[in-house]
Amino acid sequence: MSQVPCVIGFGMSPWGSEWKLSARDLIAKAARETIKSAGIGMKEIEAIHIGAMTTGMFTGQENIGAYAADAMGIPGVPASRHEGACASASVAFNAACDDIASGRHKMVWSGGIEKMTDVSGDGATAALAAASEREFEADQGATFPLMYALMAKSHMAALGTTREMLTAVAVKNHRNASKNPHAQFQMEVTPKIVESSIMVADPLRLFDCSPITDGSAGLIVVSEDVAKSLGKPYVRVLGRALVSDQMFLHRRKVLHEMPGAVKATKHALDEAGKKITDMQAIELHDCFTIAELMLLEAMGLYEPGKAGPATVDGKTAIEGESPVNSSGGLKGKGHPVGATGAAQIGELFLQLTGTAPTERQIPKDPTVGMAMNVGGIGTMCGATVLEGVRK
Amino acid sequence: MSQVPCVIGFGMSPWGSEWKLSARDLIAKAARETIKSAGIGMKEIEAIHIGAMTTGMFTGQENIGAYAADAMGIPGVPASRHEGACASASVAFNAACDDIASGRHKMVWSGGIEKMTDVSGDGATAALAAASEREFEADQGATFPLMYALMAKSHMAALGTTREMLTAVAVKNHRNASKNPHAQFQMEVTPKIVESSIMVADPLRLFDCSPITDGSAGLIVVSEDVAKSLGKPYVRVLGRALVSDQMFLHRRKVLHEMPGAVKATKHALDEAGKKITDMQAIELHDCFTIAELMLLEAMGLYEPGKAGPATVDGKTAIEGESPVNSSGGLKGKGHPVGATGAAQIGELFLQLTGTAPTERQIPKDPTVGMAMNVGGIGTMCGATVLEGVRK
Repeated sequence: MSQVPCVIGFGMSPWGSEWKLSARDLIAKAARETIKSAGIGMKEIEAIHIGAMTTGMFTGQENIGAYAADAMGIPGVPASRHEGACASASVAFNAACDDIASGRHKMVWSGGIEKMTDVSGDGATAALAAASEREFEADQGATFPLMYALMAKSHMAALGTTREMLTAVAVKNHRNASKNPHAQFQMEVTPKIVESSIMVADPLRLFDCSPITDGSAGLIVVSEDVAKSLGKPYVRVLGRALVSDQMFLHRRKVLHEMPGAVKATKHALDEAGKKITDMQAIELHDCFTIAELMLLEAMGLYEPGKAGPATVDGKTAIEGESPVNSSGGLKGKGHPVGATGAAQIGELFLQLTGTAPTERQIPKDPTVGMAMNVGGIGTMCGATVLEGVRK
Repeated sequence: MSQVPCVIGFGMSPWGSEWKLSARDLIAKAARETIKSAGIGMKEIEAIHIGAMTTGMFTGQENIGAYAADAMGIPGVPASRHEGACASASVAFNAACDDIASGRHKMVWSGGIEKMTDVSGDGATAALAAASEREFEADQGATFPLMYALMAKSHMAALGTTREMLTAVAVKNHRNASKNPHAQFQMEVTPKIVESSIMVADPLRLFDCSPITDGSAGLIVVSEDVAKSLGKPYVRVLGRALVSDQMFLHRRKVLHEMPGAVKATKHALDEAGKKITDMQAIELHDCFTIAELMLLEAMGLYEPGKAGPATVDGKTAIEGESPVNSSGGLKGKGHPVGATGAAQIGELFLQLTGTAPTERQIPKDPTVGMAMNVGGIGTMCGATVLEGVRK
């Protein structure tokens, strides 16, 4: 019988343009917050699983497992770095869950890191382009804003999505971020601010895009017997899926659909024995505003073309029928690419155990939720279904 | 009861300066050879675990899990990329073993890739330096040849190791490589060639250093019930360890010792219930000739200062008492950093199942062996103890 992995703690470093902190500092800070949240000592951590997308291109540093162990002051432990573009922390989380499920370890740290502001000029765009297909797409000029702009144009043409609907995603997620003391942008934005921001790739404007962020986040993952023995609230990993997809946008049959996310949702829900409508809290990958709408439809929460109107109607707000990105999402909280997936699961840990700060705790007191972490144009999709055990 | 992971197949792409092959081509070739070796179809692979050190810095491509799935023609499968510098393929192999041991999957591909010759100038040296501590060592000029040269100087001063002993490692491993049709350098070298080659970092000359290599390698890892059902020879993973160490050479108490390798060896042997003297075949990380001697001593096969004389005496030759690097090692076979660990385990798969090519099959027909894969200056050490089941 394999062990059910459980999460007993979550911590983040500051997220933002953290010019005074190195990747080492960020990991150390996130790790200290994580063990504080879990109520354990650093030396109780038996192994490290860390996600990082392209620390090499951002900072010239690889060997990130050992680097993290050293930063956390526990060199010697088994330490693995995992990568799946912007879903790297979900790849790490899956390895951590396997590590627990196999019985090999009882308590591991699963997190992520990206230090993105140490590159100059278009260095960040070049590094991020490594998540797309390099030879045939990125090197031909297909940057991520361009590719998501194509998806948005297609979504608008086929399904009637409007500028107002994209704006509603940005406004909602910034409102949530304004209540998150760890968010990069703790500020609300008006529709006018969003719609008068500079054009990046038509129809995507600056406020349709997630930012460049330095940051780290971590989770303590344990076997359920350990979780129970601590006598504190925790979340159980009911279902998880890590799904790849073919690498090329130009081969995708319908530009505004994300087949990997459809498949990952199905696998994770099936494993959990749940339906998408059972999810009372969702954290998903709003790297661009259009991505939030596409994912809500790929996950089956809304029919194609209905996610935009639902957002405008407030259905995905914290007080709505299906709260989405209560953390502020990638848009407002920030997007240190290798760490994002860990913070998504972390937000659900807070929400599902009822330990989120009062001002952003989902009022319906959710107990079941789902994270959807996406790499590239949806070429890696990590879906995780969690259930809170509140005691 | 967790499942014992077993290896049922091994395959390599060509290894060398493969200018006409992309990373995609190399992965595809290795994968085809792997399934051929295992006697399975590509679509039977349920998940991918691939090691890569710094594909971003070498080729601008990350998202390597999805990239590999796409290259192998099986997009959609769970696909994870793992990194631990030059021990990346061992990190991947451990994740693959956890995946099998947890019961999550029954048959996975575990491999590695590095495409190192697409960078110009000192690009490869810069990329490899990402495996060391960047801020305090690499950026101060401490490249890998320099750091291993310091270790060699220390080993020579403290333990009496000589130029002749380093030469003996290179001569032996090139002799083995001359019998390996997959090796980058299928040629013997004389002591004179080694000792008159250009100085790289005193005392290390060109023929003391492993080369820059393009290449991929893969293994099929399955649960033992699957291995048994196929009725072919296979190897069981008796013990494995992945150990980190503090990142800095300047903090190491004794420059020519590798504490991570000592610890990894102990953990893997303890788990296997074996002694180092039980190992009848060893593949170890001869990134530089001095590394082979340091590792033989760290692993406890020889007392400090005795590995050099043993090598000169032929004790680690294929026909010796303890055959080491029958494949040709990193020195002769090549060292595509992210793939090396997979090829080490692959060589042991061949040797322990008695299916190595006749000209390099260890004459004593070994059944138990160990791989030691090292990242950085020994900051990541992956040790794997394997046992052949020959039927």
